[in-house]
Amino acid sequence: MKIAIAQLNYSVGDLEGNKTKIISAVERARNEKADLVVFAEYAISGTQCFDLLQNATFLEACEETLREIARACHDISALIGLPIQDGNRIVSAAAFIQDGWIVKYIGKQRVSSRFDMGFLSVSAGAENIEIKDNVIQVAIGEDILDYAKFGGECDTVISMRSQPFYRGIIEKRHNFHREMATELGKNVLMVNHVGGQADCVYDGSSSAYTKEGELIGMLSNFEEDFCVVDFDNGSPLQFPAQNRTYNTYRAIKLGLKDYFRKNGFTKACLGMSGGIDSAVVLAMAAEVLGPENVRVLMMPSQFSSDHSVSDAVNMAEGLGVKYNIVPINAAYDVVNESMKEILGDTEFDVTEENMQSRLRMIMLMALSNKHGYIVLNTSNKSEAAVGYGTMYGDESGAIGVIGDLYKIEVYSLARFINRDKIIIPENIILKAPSAELRPGQQDSDSLPPYEVLDAILYRFIEKGQEVEEIINAGFDDHMVRRVVGLVKRSEYKRRQSPPPLRLSSRPFSTHFILPLINKFQM
Amino acid sequence: MKIAIAQLNYSVGDLEGNKTKIISAVERARNEKADLVVFAEYAISGTQCFDLLQNATFLEACEETLREIARACHDISALIGLPIQDGNRIVSAAAFIQDGWIVKYIGKQRVSSRFDMGFLSVSAGAENIEIKDNVIQVAIGEDILDYAKFGGECDTVISMRSQPFYRGIIEKRHNFHREMATELGKNVLMVNHVGGQADCVYDGSSSAYTKEGELIGMLSNFEEDFCVVDFDNGSPLQFPAQNRTYNTYRAIKLGLKDYFRKNGFTKACLGMSGGIDSAVVLAMAAEVLGPENVRVLMMPSQFSSDHSVSDAVNMAEGLGVKYNIVPINAAYDVVNESMKEILGDTEFDVTEENMQSRLRMIMLMALSNKHGYIVLNTSNKSEAAVGYGTMYGDESGAIGVIGDLYKIEVYSLARFINRDKIIIPENIILKAPSAELRPGQQDSDSLPPYEVLDAILYRFIEKGQEVEEIINAGFDDHMVRRVVGLVKRSEYKRRQSPPPLRLSSRPFSTHFILPLINKFQM
Repeated sequence: MKIAIAQLNYSVGDLEGNKTKIISAVERARNEKADLVVFAEYAISGTQCFDLLQNATFLEACEETLREIARACHDISALIGLPIQDGNRIVSAAAFIQDGWIVKYIGKQRVSSRFDMGFLSVSAGAENIEIKDNVIQVAIGEDILDYAKFGGECDTVISMRSQPFYRGIIEKRHNFHREMATELGKNVLMVNHVGGQADCVYDGSSSAYTKEGELIGMLSNFEEDFCVVDFDNGSPLQFPAQNRTYNTYRAIKLGLKDYFRKNGFTKACLGMSGGIDSAVVLAMAAEVLGPENVRVLMMPSQFSSDHSVSDAVNMAEGLGVKYNIVPINAAYDVVNESMKEILGDTEFDVTEENMQSRLRMIMLMALSNKHGYIVLNTSNKSEAAVGYGTMYGDESGAIGVIGDLYKIEVYSLARFINRDKIIIPENIILKAPSAELRPGQQDSDSLPPYEVLDAILYRFIEKGQEVEEIINAGFDDHMVRRVVGLVKRSEYKRRQSPPPLRLSSRPFSTHFILPLINKFQM
Repeated sequence: MKIAIAQLNYSVGDLEGNKTKIISAVERARNEKADLVVFAEYAISGTQCFDLLQNATFLEACEETLREIARACHDISALIGLPIQDGNRIVSAAAFIQDGWIVKYIGKQRVSSRFDMGFLSVSAGAENIEIKDNVIQVAIGEDILDYAKFGGECDTVISMRSQPFYRGIIEKRHNFHREMATELGKNVLMVNHVGGQADCVYDGSSSAYTKEGELIGMLSNFEEDFCVVDFDNGSPLQFPAQNRTYNTYRAIKLGLKDYFRKNGFTKACLGMSGGIDSAVVLAMAAEVLGPENVRVLMMPSQFSSDHSVSDAVNMAEGLGVKYNIVPINAAYDVVNESMKEILGDTEFDVTEENMQSRLRMIMLMALSNKHGYIVLNTSNKSEAAVGYGTMYGDESGAIGVIGDLYKIEVYSLARFINRDKIIIPENIILKAPSAELRPGQQDSDSLPPYEVLDAILYRFIEKGQEVEEIINAGFDDHMVRRVVGLVKRSEYKRRQSPPPLRLSSRPFSTHFILPLINKFQM
């Protein structure tokens, strides 16, 4: 039996567009003599829909779209994901189409991802379908994780997913499916979404394995793809080696590209400090949108060093990106003067630091409002974790391009960007990180060195390690407690930050949320 | 059998504090000869914990606290809620304590609230306990909603809740439990949290009903309370009439008070425009924190009318709240001048409007950073719904005090605040609403009258009605589509807004979330 895997880039709510893609894959599959063509979970609706799933008009439109697709499925069977209303429940389902008819719906049983939680109900779950005497079990979404369930009377297990990318997931997913195929002695086929959807990037990487655990189908990462697998006559493939920095780079590219394309935006702007974070974001934006669609502002204050502007200018000129130098001194002085009576005769402190950062936001937002450039946020995960940033200042923007990368990962990405030619001036990569909001300030005045900070944060956040565990691994007791305390106390800033493009297993805002009132000493 | 209901105000993570409250209620219950004392779901931990539930140290500390409490439970039985680790699952459970021993845990079966979703696993669910030959079924959280399950062999059903307040819930909850008692023919007892926890307010309103559906126990709304009910000898009570505006008022008071108290904050500030929203927030803040702990800034621009400052000053002086008048003209001119090259010779538009609003945020945040005043957000739900506000401008602040009230509800609250004496000057209540960001601007230039806007929004958001349904109810086709379009397009602003204090069944940010990319015409 031949099964076609259609790995497509859907858009949430774009039922017409999604339908067109699906029908053209159905036609291609029929031309290539496939018996069945398989699409991802939520193929018709796109994902994540959030409370759009509460909208009856939307659910009806999804089912109407399905009926239109079904009419195009003559001489081929199809499995297509969509949300459906089942009594008073809304479930994620696969529609099984045979000879142009919707034969049955198979509902998702396990509602465990934070994307489905609170929006979806649990359904009766996995069921078999039959095509040319081949018995196939269908698992929607995370149902595949309970894989002991799929050991019954069947030849093939099909897993329809909408699983976002994060560092390491491609290898992990491959190992999972291969082991599953071997353990159960079943053919396994997995089809995933590909494309960016706001803060999520779906990497695709759909695949197929024989009962012996042999990889016989492997679709592209980070782009649309299509293939027909034949479990009886498949040739074994080598699982391609994965480079994490390259995957991160591709994920950001696809995420950023689709964020703009699907929203109908074309132009972006950002503030360039001369530091590594904004340099990396600029490089990515210029690569994705074209330098002609990106605009940067350098906004020095009296605390900016000379190289800040010159390094930024060098980079912008190298890329051919339009820039303006807008000093904030005058505005800073006037705001200070206006607030003189209130601020009184106090010492320079975080108040004045934040004021500079917020004035820069005003300038950027003015450019955005007036000329339609979307502001890109340039904060990294290390900063967001410990609250080393200004709310409504540098923590503003439409989307956090590198908000799920630790500082040391930002450096790796910078070096990757420079792999063939210098795009980010060496000086930007080599200089000591500084917010430049007070005289001679360096990040290392307030924070441990990033190698240490990031290692503690990674253990605490991604690995879920306890304070004691991190200390036992050799980190300084006082420093670990201080870092964890900072993470706890800066939750309020993260709650109002732009959504970070997801690149890790625990991005802030969706997968790491602390209470806003929390007396527990973690 | 006599059962004590302890309705307490817990804090998330404050295990010591929660324990002290619990033990003193145990002692009081024993003194009053109760056989059993019942506490709410998550009594030991406080709620909502979010990813604090992933912290093993925290879960261990909760169980250690439970053991300490158990030792205080001699000569009385107790039911106490806490999160526990059950194998590799984290569940919400009730510990049943008898004679100082933890006899069993009863886990929560239904994980359906958006507070538990993604943080909690499903457990085996309801089980019976026995005290003096009385069989009691225990339901944790939303398990009580499947009440057909509680028709078995038992005398009494105990429902341990952590259900937040929203308009109408007190009456709804009372009716639910009364009907349940009557239908099942069982005694029913419900115990709830009371107190504010960040954006949630728990109203308490714990209650008890005989098998005949007679109300025999009714604890206070919005404050700690305690009572002992005797199902064999209870006297029927009248369910107290509820006033929705008064309840809203009390919910905001408690929410605001606990937000400050539990965070260790004492002082608040806000910007006063002379409009109704900031006036209501000021009145509430002065009432809760004391006028001496509240500070306001009036920040007129060239577009502010004279009455804006004078009305605001009148109100602040009437309350005895310290205020400063900080004109933003000079800062506005300098920012405009600095951006001249970039903004060019364009018409005055939303760019310049937002600039004023953002400069006010800078002033307020400077006051906050320098002197420790927490900025209160003054946006209402109508504005947030249609995006009639400035990101990083008036949409800033730590918490949205009236962010879950439609504009017409803000007026009702203003009149309630003035019930005994004029706190909010009549002029503020009577004037036409205006953002005053351009010459002669009024809200009605861009928006339908609030009576109409709010009615459409209420149907769309709270009632979940479809566009067609709203039009069929007599609203203008074009206007309904325009409003729904605005709701859809302003999701990006709401994602970065301060959490609104929850007062409705569908507050933004937790119960009404749209995709950031969404091509569907709702």
